[in-house]
Amino acid sequence: MAAARPTEPFGHRFGDQGLLAQALTHRSAGAPHNERLEFLGDALLDLIIAEALYQRWPRADEGAMTRARAELVRESTLARIARGLELGPRLMLGPGEMKSGGHRRDSILSDALEAVIAAIHLDAGFDACRQAVLAWFRADLDGLEIAKVGKDAKTRLQEWLQARQRPLPVYELLGESGDDHAKTFGVRCSVSEPQVSAEGEGASRRAAEQQAAEAVLAALDKVG
Amino acid sequence: MAAARPTEPFGHRFGDQGLLAQALTHRSAGAPHNERLEFLGDALLDLIIAEALYQRWPRADEGAMTRARAELVRESTLARIARGLELGPRLMLGPGEMKSGGHRRDSILSDALEAVIAAIHLDAGFDACRQAVLAWFRADLDGLEIAKVGKDAKTRLQEWLQARQRPLPVYELLGESGDDHAKTFGVRCSVSEPQVSAEGEGASRRAAEQQAAEAVLAALDKVG
Repeated sequence: MAAARPTEPFGHRFGDQGLLAQALTHRSAGAPHNERLEFLGDALLDLIIAEALYQRWPRADEGAMTRARAELVRESTLARIARGLELGPRLMLGPGEMKSGGHRRDSILSDALEAVIAAIHLDAGFDACRQAVLAWFRADLDGLEIAKVGKDAKTRLQEWLQARQRPLPVYELLGESGDDHAKTFGVRCSVSEPQVSAEGEGASRRAAEQQAAEAVLAALDKVG
Repeated sequence: MAAARPTEPFGHRFGDQGLLAQALTHRSAGAPHNERLEFLGDALLDLIIAEALYQRWPRADEGAMTRARAELVRESTLARIARGLELGPRLMLGPGEMKSGGHRRDSILSDALEAVIAAIHLDAGFDACRQAVLAWFRADLDGLEIAKVGKDAKTRLQEWLQARQRPLPVYELLGESGDDHAKTFGVRCSVSEPQVSAEGEGASRRAAEQQAAEAVLAALDKVG
């Protein structure tokens, strides 16, 4: 990344410096802090990456794009980008967070980066925001290969369970509807440890199984 | 809603009619269909609603905005808006879906509306897209009151379990870290039927409990 001039620490020259200051203010330093901006920045980032994937990969289906985006916008990636932009030293933290090294913590860096994204959007509009964000993510986007975007949900669920030496999932066909040209299949995927199950539907039994496995993975992901 | 002219069925005059045709083509009618556009439209809608809430509710916190958005972008709301825009009769469906009344189904209408959102964005850019979408959602946005945006997660979880006559959740304090000015609390919320648990953290024990309850609700929501 080319060295940014001091007035453009994130590749954008802010008209409203107050927005940037708020984006860099952690809750521990008092209001106005960056949590509302983070909410908006999260949605901006999801869209900008979705759009980039849509344009780069004209033949990728929804599932591949969803997995690719999850890969790109995860906390560890955002924290790494924040470090590359030297965001940490600019953070405003309360004394407790300061002492415990909050400006190096992945979650704080990642949240603040999302807040900066929102600040650019509010300062200069969506096109300016997209331009800055794509510059930060260019190397990660370039490095992503469609063939390597994670494995399918059934494979990932199986591997997750095997790694923990737990029983494999059970897939159960719940029903079929529609005529031969446009059948819809319903499938339930059940896992016993922890006890989680979910239903999926799709144009084939395999697609329904993948969707059900994806839902079980999502539930397992939220479960501590 | 004012009657749209025939050339602007969704409040936007498409330069590229092919984009609109693709957005209205269900998978059952063959490729190119609207599933990739739906992926992009989903992200656009999330952002446009996030931004509208951010601007309308300058004092709302992240949690209230998240709940308000979930309320606005759910399938039944999108399907109702799609019906108001007379989207159903314009859909291209395969013979099976056509026969089984697919053009009236909430999921198909909602997905196609998201695809139309993406089509407008690709046709004319983000500002035109936002303008069209906000016109569709204006009445719902106006009708939403911050005080009424759902109850907090602990209350919703308790009501969910009580409605099903299941045991109430158990909240367990896992630990505290940080000094008095910026403490972080960790809490686990456990539900026994179905067996689901999740951890949350926050600046107060209550905030940590809310986050854990929210994660359990998300898991229960995915579970069939």
